[in-house]
Parts: sequence; C-alpha cells; structure tokens
Amino acid sequence: MKYQPISLVQKFALFSERWQPKVIAEMNDYQFKIVKVMRDFVWHSHPDTDEAFIVIEGELRIDFRDGVVRLGAGEMFVVPKGVEHKPFAEREVKLMLIEPRGVPNTGDAGGERTAANDVWI
Amino acid sequence: MKYQPISLVQKFALFSERWQPKVIAEMNDYQFKIVKVMRDFVWHSHPDTDEAFIVIEGELRIDFRDGVVRLGAGEMFVVPKGVEHKPFAEREVKLMLIEPRGVPNTGDAGGERTAANDVWI
Repeated sequence: MKYQPISLVQKFALFSERWQPKVIAEMNDYQFKIVKVMRDFVWHSHPDTDEAFIVIEGELRIDFRDGVVRLGAGEMFVVPKGVEHKPFAEREVKLMLIEPRGVPNTGDAGGERTAANDVWI
Repeated sequence: MKYQPISLVQKFALFSERWQPKVIAEMNDYQFKIVKVMRDFVWHSHPDTDEAFIVIEGELRIDFRDGVVRLGAGEMFVVPKGVEHKPFAEREVKLMLIEPRGVPNTGDAGGERTAANDVWI
C-alpha cells in the first residue's frame, strides 16, 4: 500500500521507555515525534524554535519561570522560542511534539537527559 | 493567566460551518488549523509544501490519483508537496491540519471552495 495511515495508538504500543522521542512523520523540515514522559524533566529552552506539545493521554504540566500550564488529553500548547520550560507528569503521559528536525529534547541545557535525535519508529 | 491550554474540544464547539479552517495556534511560521468536513472536496495540490492531517473525530478518506488512505480518530497522514489529493468524508469529520501560514485550502486549484485564510478561533 502506497498510502498508509499513521496510528498514534499503534506507534505508542511499540515502545515503553520514557523521555526518548520517536519520529513518526515529517512535514517539510519539521518532525512529528511521540514520547512517553513521567516525573520531572530538566529546565531548558530552545533558542531557535517554538515547540508544540499535544497531549494524547494523561495530564502534563509544563512549568515556566513565571507560571504553569496544565494540559489534558486533546489539549495543546506551543512553547515560544527561547522560553525556559520544564515538563512534569505525576503519572505517565503520552505526548506528541512537533518541531523542526534536529531539535534536541534538552535544548540549550544538554546533559545526561539528552535523547538520541531522529529516531524513527 | 499567561499560559493557557488550547483545547481541541472547546475550539471545535465554537463553530459548525464546514471546510472553513480556523487557526488555533502558531509554531514559528506554521499554523495549527481545525476544520469540520463532510462529503467531497476538490482535487488540488500544494506546490510548495507538505500538509499534515490529524483526524480528531470521524473517518476521513483522502483520495490520490493512484490510491487512497483512510484515517480514523488518532491517525495522521502527511500529504507530500505537489501531490494531488481530494479529501472525502461520508459523515462529518473533525480534523486538524498543520502547514505553513498562508497556505490556501484549495491549493493550486482555487475556485469557489477556497476559504478565507488566517481566520483565528
């Protein structure tokens, strides 16, 4: 079949590790990535790009230096370029990220939580 | 509140007209648009950009000159730049589109089904 739907449920079923985004589609030089997250991530920002979060399952909190946003399933938020943020989830969250190809998950912060980039599933 | 979640359910509840995409968020020079569709659209392509479809509710069929893809809720597909396509839905579908700002819904085809662009909701 030349034209295949991409099922988020099916893609999420293929892995269990957390904080390791997997690419499921590309649009021009942007990528759709899915990731499972739980507990704290690191404070970081992306100096060159906005970053879109869409929650597929669970409740995600994104902390900012001056506020917070809580996203449930079917809710989204775009973190503006250069704005420090720290995702957090009390329980596991299934999340889709959309951003340009090559953006590291830890942004400008780097460190041991930096995931391999451009990993397709 | 400085940081507000964008709820797809709430945004879809704000309008009923079909084939009139509404912008709900921007990421760099890309837009997230939601749209309700039913029945046939026109054959068209977007010569300068890929176009991402994510089905939120219902079942969408996208016809191509040499094939077809069927997308249910939670499924997505990226129509490559320049590829002729025609969306179709037997019953109403709630859909999210992601593409660069300024892309017309009818692409290179134009005509009476061309919707106003950059309409926010």
